[in-house]
Amino acid sequence: MQKPSLPKGTRDFGPVQMARRTFILDTIKETFQLFGYQQIETPAMENLSTLTGKYGDEGDQLLFKILNSGDFIKDVKAEDLEKGASAILNKVSEKGLRYDLTVPFARYVVMNRNELTFPFKRYQIQPVWRADRPQKGRYREFYQCDADVVGTDSLVCEAEIILMIRRVFEKLSLKDYSIKLNNRKILTGIAEAIGEAGKEGPLCVAIDKLDKIGWEKVKEELAQRGFGDTSISNLAPLVALESDLVGKLEFLKGFLKSSEIGLKGVEELEQVFAILRQMGVDLDHVDFDIMLARGLSYYTGAIFEVKVHNVSIGSVSGGGRYDNLTGVFGLPGVSGVGFSFGVDRLYDVLDELGLFPAESHSSTRLLLTYFDQEGFTYALGLLNQIRNAGIKTEIYPNAVKIQKQFDFANKKGIPFVGVCGDDEIKTSTISLKNMASGEQAKMDVSAAIQSVGYSM
Amino acid sequence: MQKPSLPKGTRDFGPVQMARRTFILDTIKETFQLFGYQQIETPAMENLSTLTGKYGDEGDQLLFKILNSGDFIKDVKAEDLEKGASAILNKVSEKGLRYDLTVPFARYVVMNRNELTFPFKRYQIQPVWRADRPQKGRYREFYQCDADVVGTDSLVCEAEIILMIRRVFEKLSLKDYSIKLNNRKILTGIAEAIGEAGKEGPLCVAIDKLDKIGWEKVKEELAQRGFGDTSISNLAPLVALESDLVGKLEFLKGFLKSSEIGLKGVEELEQVFAILRQMGVDLDHVDFDIMLARGLSYYTGAIFEVKVHNVSIGSVSGGGRYDNLTGVFGLPGVSGVGFSFGVDRLYDVLDELGLFPAESHSSTRLLLTYFDQEGFTYALGLLNQIRNAGIKTEIYPNAVKIQKQFDFANKKGIPFVGVCGDDEIKTSTISLKNMASGEQAKMDVSAAIQSVGYSM
Repeated sequence: MQKPSLPKGTRDFGPVQMARRTFILDTIKETFQLFGYQQIETPAMENLSTLTGKYGDEGDQLLFKILNSGDFIKDVKAEDLEKGASAILNKVSEKGLRYDLTVPFARYVVMNRNELTFPFKRYQIQPVWRADRPQKGRYREFYQCDADVVGTDSLVCEAEIILMIRRVFEKLSLKDYSIKLNNRKILTGIAEAIGEAGKEGPLCVAIDKLDKIGWEKVKEELAQRGFGDTSISNLAPLVALESDLVGKLEFLKGFLKSSEIGLKGVEELEQVFAILRQMGVDLDHVDFDIMLARGLSYYTGAIFEVKVHNVSIGSVSGGGRYDNLTGVFGLPGVSGVGFSFGVDRLYDVLDELGLFPAESHSSTRLLLTYFDQEGFTYALGLLNQIRNAGIKTEIYPNAVKIQKQFDFANKKGIPFVGVCGDDEIKTSTISLKNMASGEQAKMDVSAAIQSVGYSM
Repeated sequence: MQKPSLPKGTRDFGPVQMARRTFILDTIKETFQLFGYQQIETPAMENLSTLTGKYGDEGDQLLFKILNSGDFIKDVKAEDLEKGASAILNKVSEKGLRYDLTVPFARYVVMNRNELTFPFKRYQIQPVWRADRPQKGRYREFYQCDADVVGTDSLVCEAEIILMIRRVFEKLSLKDYSIKLNNRKILTGIAEAIGEAGKEGPLCVAIDKLDKIGWEKVKEELAQRGFGDTSISNLAPLVALESDLVGKLEFLKGFLKSSEIGLKGVEELEQVFAILRQMGVDLDHVDFDIMLARGLSYYTGAIFEVKVHNVSIGSVSGGGRYDNLTGVFGLPGVSGVGFSFGVDRLYDVLDELGLFPAESHSSTRLLLTYFDQEGFTYALGLLNQIRNAGIKTEIYPNAVKIQKQFDFANKKGIPFVGVCGDDEIKTSTISLKNMASGEQAKMDVSAAIQSVGYSM
């Protein structure tokens, strides 16, 4: 007899976890829709030609590949074996599991460019797979939840992303968080301004450690990465800068005066703030972080990252603007901006802060119980009536001791139990017990429906 | 430049398809929840040891296998190549994509048997993958939508499955359909009663062709399959039977009087009908089909199949009771009953019958448009207000000709457009145009919110 197990790095979601995930995802979906985003789904399997080369060498290694169907080994020769796995791969596999939602989205846009209405706002909530080493909080199958607009460079999109994040967090009762915001052009400008044009990548990596290791050590690292002494001292006033949003912007206008692209970045940021002001909303939670980089690679404008404070893993969302998402598939010049909620991380944050609603909307509200066959028949008569009133209701399906039926309600977290005994049958009532308070009262069905009904 | 494509047998779901699928799935979910079913999800990847041998030899062939990560070929020797794919498979792959939701559910129940509260009612809506030859209406990735109760043999579950199917169909406005119902024990009993005990499988396969090829040809086929002349003539009165539900049951009580298990099947069916009667509901759409078999293999009690009439592919749901779902994973004696909605088929049926709601709940309701920068700024000021009233609203993000903004609304199917021109700015109003009727009127924002608001 085989003992079943799950593949490493994967997991099941039971009823409680699913109800909580649904709570998070419904909140996000409702917000995306309010802002005009439409849902799409793409297949789990993509051609390897679509996936390979989009995530760097390490990413290619982490792709899950699907073995070709049928006689998958027919093209492999004995001499191929000596060349190793990478030489054999394209003979035994032509498909892989999606690694993120961005590349499939780019493929979708290119394949449907003639049918889509641009600007196209889409959201997508699906699992992705990565053959990462499993560890705490990191899985080989996990959900991503992405929203992107493509086909416009309007900064309204950036402003709306900030509003969407705030709305989701408000609905989830998350209060203590920052939406860190920066612009790739500012980073490019800083590298130019200090005399190290093109080196914003290593610059950001080093500066990112400022909080942990301090300025002296960061200077050492910059020197190791080939930054000259002058460049490093040029950088010092920026690192020392402590100011509010307006102060930072003013400082940068001076600091970046020699860099056209840097000043453009500042202007874009100011426009995003202006749009928010014109919308009549404040800048609560918005934190202009001059060194925010998030990997940089394909971002060309805004860069976002959302951090929840005072929790173990705070970074729950990120994104940015990219000017060439679809270029690799032959459609250049499509500007887009998007961001992604980390659903698993949001789950952990809400769990840590105790913010999940006590009772899930999806769970049973009332269990009908009985002592004998007569009570069972009577309860069956009530069941359909109560369900027709929209109350999620179950009947215990087998005639067992009533204590066992109550145990079932307790274990399943059902808040009300209706008892159908001889007295209730005689008087056409049920005895309704509130499982939390212990209160019990006899009443007719319509009164029971009222008592049990949702206060939503 | 690479031209992207999708793997054979897979597809994208665009915004319109997604909205329609969501309409179907939300209806099903709401019904499952009303009856106390709870959602779970299992990973896309399962160990091959979990999947293999559960779907017959053909099923094993159709499993999508995942190539091991890293140096997948290291255990393959030159001499293995001669032995062919099946000898190499277990050296290069240990995981596969799930083939259905039933086996993963059985695995889940066994792995969580100590935490679950039985009877356990679960539903699960996830894609499955099969390396079938793609053809019209058959995909390599498709969704299944299953509901099962395990841990009880109560026939209340069978009655509730009938009620759930009827509720879903009512909500989807599907009127012309049958819920075909049978019991495996009756089929076993018939084989016994005609003197061919154990041969209900071939019996059903042959009888299934009655409508197409007629009784004479079915007799020939039965003879070919080794049924004796006496058995075939014993069967004749059953084949000739034309009767209503009560008549069929009475006939079977006589026909099966020598078969204990057959009579038990009849009794179970009668109990399901009795439970429905006790619930105060009729038997509309319920069709007792004595020959319904649905592959048989693991069903031990009730067998269901739902057929929509007058459409090209009518079979949209099926299921039954099984007494040993989890036995293969070392947990014997768990009785369960379940059924599955074919989401893709339901989609096709609703499409064919024109039953999708004209407008999707998820789509944008109002587009704000403008002529110039001043109008843009004014529109931005209204946007947040209108969204805060729960109206799904967009602003056209770039200052383009107003005709282009109207084209956008038309293409996206947005039913209302709000125009923000000089007049509207001066009078603090917007001109609201109903895109279907062409009516246009100037009004203040709260009146616009009222006009645009959902009548739901």
